Amino acid sequence: MKVKSRFGHLNQEFEIGDIVYVAQNSKLKLSSGLEIENFPIAYQAYGNLNADKSNAILICHALTGDQYVASANPVIQKDGWWDFMVGKGKAIDTDKFFVICSNVIGGCMGSFGPKEINPQTNEPFGSSFPFLTIHDMVRAQNLLIEHFGIKKLHAVIGGSTGGMQVLAWGVLYPNKVKILIPMSTSYRHSPQNIAFHEVGRQAIINDPNWCEGNYLMQQKFPKSGLALARMTAHITYLSESSLQKKFGRDLNNKSGFSFSAERDFEVENYLHYQGNRFVERFDPNSYLIITRAVDYFDLESDFNGNLSGAFIELSKNKSSKICIISFSDDWLFPPSESKKLTHALSACNINVSSVVIESNGGHDSFLLKNDILEKTINGLLIEK
Amino acid sequence: MKVKSRFGHLNQEFEIGDIVYVAQNSKLKLSSGLEIENFPIAYQAYGNLNADKSNAILICHALTGDQYVASANPVIQKDGWWDFMVGKGKAIDTDKFFVICSNVIGGCMGSFGPKEINPQTNEPFGSSFPFLTIHDMVRAQNLLIEHFGIKKLHAVIGGSTGGMQVLAWGVLYPNKVKILIPMSTSYRHSPQNIAFHEVGRQAIINDPNWCEGNYLMQQKFPKSGLALARMTAHITYLSESSLQKKFGRDLNNKSGFSFSAERDFEVENYLHYQGNRFVERFDPNSYLIITRAVDYFDLESDFNGNLSGAFIELSKNKSSKICIISFSDDWLFPPSESKKLTHALSACNINVSSVVIESNGGHDSFLLKNDILEKTINGLLIEK
Repeated sequence: MKVKSRFGHLNQEFEIGDIVYVAQNSKLKLSSGLEIENFPIAYQAYGNLNADKSNAILICHALTGDQYVASANPVIQKDGWWDFMVGKGKAIDTDKFFVICSNVIGGCMGSFGPKEINPQTNEPFGSSFPFLTIHDMVRAQNLLIEHFGIKKLHAVIGGSTGGMQVLAWGVLYPNKVKILIPMSTSYRHSPQNIAFHEVGRQAIINDPNWCEGNYLMQQKFPKSGLALARMTAHITYLSESSLQKKFGRDLNNKSGFSFSAERDFEVENYLHYQGNRFVERFDPNSYLIITRAVDYFDLESDFNGNLSGAFIELSKNKSSKICIISFSDDWLFPPSESKKLTHALSACNINVSSVVIESNGGHDSFLLKNDILEKTINGLLIEK
Repeated sequence: MKVKSRFGHLNQEFEIGDIVYVAQNSKLKLSSGLEIENFPIAYQAYGNLNADKSNAILICHALTGDQYVASANPVIQKDGWWDFMVGKGKAIDTDKFFVICSNVIGGCMGSFGPKEINPQTNEPFGSSFPFLTIHDMVRAQNLLIEHFGIKKLHAVIGGSTGGMQVLAWGVLYPNKVKILIPMSTSYRHSPQNIAFHEVGRQAIINDPNWCEGNYLMQQKFPKSGLALARMTAHITYLSESSLQKKFGRDLNNKSGFSFSAERDFEVENYLHYQGNRFVERFDPNSYLIITRAVDYFDLESDFNGNLSGAFIELSKNKSSKICIISFSDDWLFPPSESKKLTHALSACNINVSSVVIESNGGHDSFLLKNDILEKTINGLLIEK
């Protein structure tokens, strides 16, 4: 299926891959109370589903990720974002497992999202798109899993926002998953992280091309606002030590400072580069919807301050296990939060393990090739 | 002297306090090579200069601070920013000391800065204002000290950007100061901090009212861009634990999420409040000039990677001493950077001490009433 891209200044068509329409016979009730029906989920699948449908692994992508986990992304024309991890003979071995990754609802890579056409108006949803929760994204993923006739997933794996989805799977569908691997994530979004999200949203909303969220109808695009949101967020995805190692205080012009409004430091160029690449592949309304869903995520509050309460049902599924993976220099979702999560899981007698991997890639470490990460995940999946 | 305010939407006149014109007979050469002359420095002074002019203390303000260290600020109509620290009988006792605080050049509270009128054009400098360094700010402060006929300062004290100025005093005028107290600062601005500054600058530049920096001439003001820059920066001034303690995930509407584009969390309101207050008292061009000066600060690079080299001259002044103060949860200028600075100072045999104060106010801790901070500074100043 071809989906027309509306990212930034691009106006090309891309082959978006597989799409199924779910909730065709029954509506999906969202956390907000709204109901949606007959909506698309775009996904990629790798490997083969075995006869008893017991070898399926769902991978949940991060905030601005997509379904192209192990195959070329048609928009940015780059390898899949977890290419080193997923494939034949790799840590998540597609010779053994049927691996599915779907674009979250609210996203912009073909699933039900604000840049898609609202069939009732024949215009993009824009600002009329419903606000979502992480749980809603997972409810939609469950419909995709049902579409495949899968009764129980061998594993659900994801990092950051994807890790929140993994945890939500454990809460919403405790009997439909065997192994849960949340990485670089937390049981709730911290006030500091909410604050960073809000300045990103504000950057988009301040852009004169925002048009109250209806920029697509007006043939505009809040490019500089979206780029600025990404630049700010990108700082939080790295760490002080990784920035120091990558760029230090290196200058663009080795002969000295410009004493002008020009950029002087390589780290500034890098940020601008990241911002400019992002607007070619992401939708501003999606950014608002998804960051808000992440802000709303708080399993502790959902269970009146008792985090263990979120996992009582999961603890009854005696074949389940969960491994919390965090990275030492991730300051967005620091290992201390994984520790609290691990304690809460231990307290309800779940088979839980916790791995803190030494890193200098910051929050984004789960996206970087790492021998320990690969061995950990591989071991969890094949262990008897 | 009255100075017309051009902060944000305000158009009132404020009594700005004392101003002297310096460099009247000789030009001041800036780091960029440009020379400036006959320019204003706005300052506040407290207490009395003694007969041998040996009791003067210079306080250097932070990035967006001002000279109103211990008296009401006429623009925001609030107490001085270090009111608890400076005054009769306080830790910096104005019964004993003559305390001076001047607005940095490049600033916007009456000193030579981009919102002031360029006498050659009779218009605000705007984008034609020269780019500066921390050293330039200190060179201007030295002219103010000379204006008072002070040969040697009893102490120079400052936090954050003010702390960089304190260190620059030790480098530029090692024989003109007895006690140096840099707080919450570093010997160089880190790449992560440069990155945060750049997104702030970009927020201002992206604002349609920026007008290439000449907004004042066009009767405009990039208010939302400046507010956004402040919101982003403000996150870095606090700490995760302080945000958790202040707001946690408290909602504006206790009955639940809005599922709308409205703000849901109190921490968001707080950030917006900080942004909106800031535009009433600060000039966008000043923000660009001063953040750039801070980015440029790197004593290690100035001395070819040998940080101790910066303080060789200071080490020859045997009556000098320096105390580096840092705060445990300051992640903008973490105690680890103070440690490196302390080591470099020790290595050239300076009388150096280092104090790490337990805090949960983040980078801004030096601005918050703190018994240990007060006792530390008081002890340093009165010690024989």
